[in-house]
Amino acid sequence: MPPRTLPIEPLTAAAFEPFGEVIEAAGAAERIAINEGFSERFHALARVDLGDAADGPAQALINIFRSKPRQLPMYLRMLERHPLGSQSFTPLAPGTFLVVVAPGAPDQPAPDLAGLRCFLAAAGQGVNYARGTWHHPLLSLHAVSDFLVVDRAGPGLNLQEFALAPESVWIPALD
Amino acid sequence: MPPRTLPIEPLTAAAFEPFGEVIEAAGAAERIAINEGFSERFHALARVDLGDAADGPAQALINIFRSKPRQLPMYLRMLERHPLGSQSFTPLAPGTFLVVVAPGAPDQPAPDLAGLRCFLAAAGQGVNYARGTWHHPLLSLHAVSDFLVVDRAGPGLNLQEFALAPESVWIPALD
Repeated sequence: MPPRTLPIEPLTAAAFEPFGEVIEAAGAAERIAINEGFSERFHALARVDLGDAADGPAQALINIFRSKPRQLPMYLRMLERHPLGSQSFTPLAPGTFLVVVAPGAPDQPAPDLAGLRCFLAAAGQGVNYARGTWHHPLLSLHAVSDFLVVDRAGPGLNLQEFALAPESVWIPALD
Repeated sequence: MPPRTLPIEPLTAAAFEPFGEVIEAAGAAERIAINEGFSERFHALARVDLGDAADGPAQALINIFRSKPRQLPMYLRMLERHPLGSQSFTPLAPGTFLVVVAPGAPDQPAPDLAGLRCFLAAAGQGVNYARGTWHHPLLSLHAVSDFLVVDRAGPGLNLQEFALAPESVWIPALD
């Protein structure tokens, strides 16, 4: 069977809503002048989810991920999710990256691959994966890229992985 | 009395330690290869402090601040602090900014101005102000600059301000 080709869609808050939040100044619901007019606050673009108190005491961490670029086209080999907390990725220099996500029920070990999506984040866009959202690890393009990553530290197993059938889905080259 | 000139110091983790954390890949204590070698995680560069549970249910927010550049030399007019949570600033494009901080006891309404410091953050550096650290609002240089800001949302009064005596302290021009 030939591989399924995943179309590359533009990243918008509306399209990404089932999977989390887009972190970008454009279109912020709350935009507040502060610091005697020297700054604007684009407020609450994303909220850090540390899971349920029953999972134990958790804290949000700020990390940097440094990502090597991928070559397109590429086969998707795996997805992962973090059942206990959200995870955000914001580029530390203007640049594009790919965001691959899939729906999936918390109590099911596999994502719903029929709902797999691939978004192209434009310069100025980051994402915050909602808790438990299946996603591919960082897919930067073109250059080694640094991202600020905000995620959960705390007790409990916060990583699940899923292997796709070999050569079953691929991402085409960018136009 | 002539104004006191605040020397501009390089930002280092050691010098900034009394005031919070420097967010930078260089010198990270934990550097972990992930994503089948495609990414490096510079782990736990900063921890988000949401204050005491007694202050009420709090959450970490991810925001963007867009800051207009300041002209140096400039007089310092005020400082502020957030007694209920940490606040981080990470530039979303490589660039420098100034970080002005002062020590101060939680139960005192004024900072200890004898301990006032001014640091120049280099490209690739952000800061996380520890809970309750007196600091000047964003001081970007050269251009309008976007910063990712991680701070606390929740009940309680999380802002205190302090006005400096007019024309008492100034930041000199950069060399």
